[in-house]
Amino acid sequence: MKTSYYQGNRTFSIEETTPASPGPGEVRLNVAYCGICGTDTHIYHGAMDQRVNIPQTIGHETSATVAELGEGVTGFSVGDAVVVRPLDNRAETPADRGHSHVCKGLKFIGIDSPGGFQNSWTVPAFTLHKAPAGTDLKQAALCEPLAVACHDVRLGEIVPGELAVVIGGGPIGMLVALVAREAGARVIVSEVNEFRLSFARDLGLEAVNPMETDLAELCREKSGGSGADIVFEVSGAKAAAAGMTDLLAIRGRIVVVAIYPKPVEINLFQFFWKELKMCGARVYEPEDYERALKLIADKTLPLEPLITGVRPLDELQKAFEDLDASPNAMKTLIDCRA
Amino acid sequence: MKTSYYQGNRTFSIEETTPASPGPGEVRLNVAYCGICGTDTHIYHGAMDQRVNIPQTIGHETSATVAELGEGVTGFSVGDAVVVRPLDNRAETPADRGHSHVCKGLKFIGIDSPGGFQNSWTVPAFTLHKAPAGTDLKQAALCEPLAVACHDVRLGEIVPGELAVVIGGGPIGMLVALVAREAGARVIVSEVNEFRLSFARDLGLEAVNPMETDLAELCREKSGGSGADIVFEVSGAKAAAAGMTDLLAIRGRIVVVAIYPKPVEINLFQFFWKELKMCGARVYEPEDYERALKLIADKTLPLEPLITGVRPLDELQKAFEDLDASPNAMKTLIDCRA
Repeated sequence: MKTSYYQGNRTFSIEETTPASPGPGEVRLNVAYCGICGTDTHIYHGAMDQRVNIPQTIGHETSATVAELGEGVTGFSVGDAVVVRPLDNRAETPADRGHSHVCKGLKFIGIDSPGGFQNSWTVPAFTLHKAPAGTDLKQAALCEPLAVACHDVRLGEIVPGELAVVIGGGPIGMLVALVAREAGARVIVSEVNEFRLSFARDLGLEAVNPMETDLAELCREKSGGSGADIVFEVSGAKAAAAGMTDLLAIRGRIVVVAIYPKPVEINLFQFFWKELKMCGARVYEPEDYERALKLIADKTLPLEPLITGVRPLDELQKAFEDLDASPNAMKTLIDCRA
Repeated sequence: MKTSYYQGNRTFSIEETTPASPGPGEVRLNVAYCGICGTDTHIYHGAMDQRVNIPQTIGHETSATVAELGEGVTGFSVGDAVVVRPLDNRAETPADRGHSHVCKGLKFIGIDSPGGFQNSWTVPAFTLHKAPAGTDLKQAALCEPLAVACHDVRLGEIVPGELAVVIGGGPIGMLVALVAREAGARVIVSEVNEFRLSFARDLGLEAVNPMETDLAELCREKSGGSGADIVFEVSGAKAAAAGMTDLLAIRGRIVVVAIYPKPVEINLFQFFWKELKMCGARVYEPEDYERALKLIADKTLPLEPLITGVRPLDELQKAFEDLDASPNAMKTLIDCRA
């Protein structure tokens, strides 16, 4: 079998290895597809060298079939199509109060331990979700980012008819917009990149450039003067954080999806004045995976256009290089079947 | 009758006037006591000269008895003890979606229209809440700030046993701490002023100086390592806004009570990482007034120590001057009965 290793210094090696038999409670998978996430490109750029254990196999947006069951594993059979929820919460303590998915000792599989950019991958059985019969394994590799979007929309508590603004039209922003629309929201995507704007419009989403359109005014126009009900902040841009409170109606909500490495200025006066609410949303819980799998199996969302390209595992290095050269790409999948 | 007027330039005049008969839907009150709020001192300092209509009678923390009923007013009788909820929401529109208390066109009685620092005061009947029999009219003048605290604690959704931190030990902070404790929370008051620290301790509250005590560590100690469940930010201090996210457990909540005139830096990473929640809380809704009145009537809270002093209306000017000279004062009431 072939395994890729991130070696530091923007370099992946591909090596011939021997599949490890799964231990008790583990399952060995034949990886089908594994998507390249923004986090993977951060790792490739060396930004997380202190966290990853070089040489490290990365990748966490995976669809697969079951190859071999370890001792004590029930509920799965060889050949089952599955996706991996790459959260290892075995270090959870009572101080985490049951919030396993964001527990203090959480290990992220594919960052803190080996990931999916390889032919064969052994993971704890508790990370697996069975894909419904007929699920397209390419689209199933989108389950992880789609589950992020499902989590964000669930925590946002969208009610049908609400006006939602998604700030940031990258892959997660697009998925949040699609899931919010499916939940009944009227969605506006705010994005400065022209390619992404037209990409969003091709998905049937309203999309505006906030440098050209007065977004707060647009929100009021579309809501009888109230403002937006909810803002998903997916951009991580300082200007978005500064301005998001202006978009909202009285008691409007903000879901913070983006990762802000540094504190940013927020208009707390608006929080007080309009009694706004904000919550952070990180990764997903099992129910978000189940929801995402159902959306994929039922072909509810137009996911195919999000898959910019599929590359064989042998071209992993080239795939990362090409992503750096093409800022308009949405999701690149690695075909790990050979 | 005597009416006070804020004349600008840190000056109040007291003038002899004639009581105005109440119009339809209005009630004329004999004011009993009216507390001096932080907002009143802002007005006195000239910070709100653009908003108030000089010469203006201010004051909005009022207890009173009914003197005269206007046409069509039912449910009240002459002599009834009442408190005034000083919110005029008659400009509410459907765009406010039923959130009357923070509607866009809200007028605050005692700031945007005449207030309670006078013997006789005419207000819309819909602003009145009847005080239960036997209610102390001095303590009833605390109903307005206490209703703020009840609103804050209600929006904070405290569950008995939770660890709550109140940042800022002024009058509102103290009331929030007392109401949160009554709701079953274990409360820590964070305050830098030594007088306020010992004041809080005299009320039986745990109170720490965050310059001397590692507040985040204390919160973890008191919660089996989790951190606080809820933070009430009442201080308006930049440092408090910057650090409040560190105090909280996974999925902890923040209630923004303080007024921040300028945007401040917030650690959005912590919002994401711990899935924190934050909401703004402004003024009160009728149920908060009813709750506050009940707490006063039942003598549930140790409110008496919060009343630093009572001054006759004639000494209004002196009362404001003394407040400036004595930063340790909690609540000064103006006796408006003569």
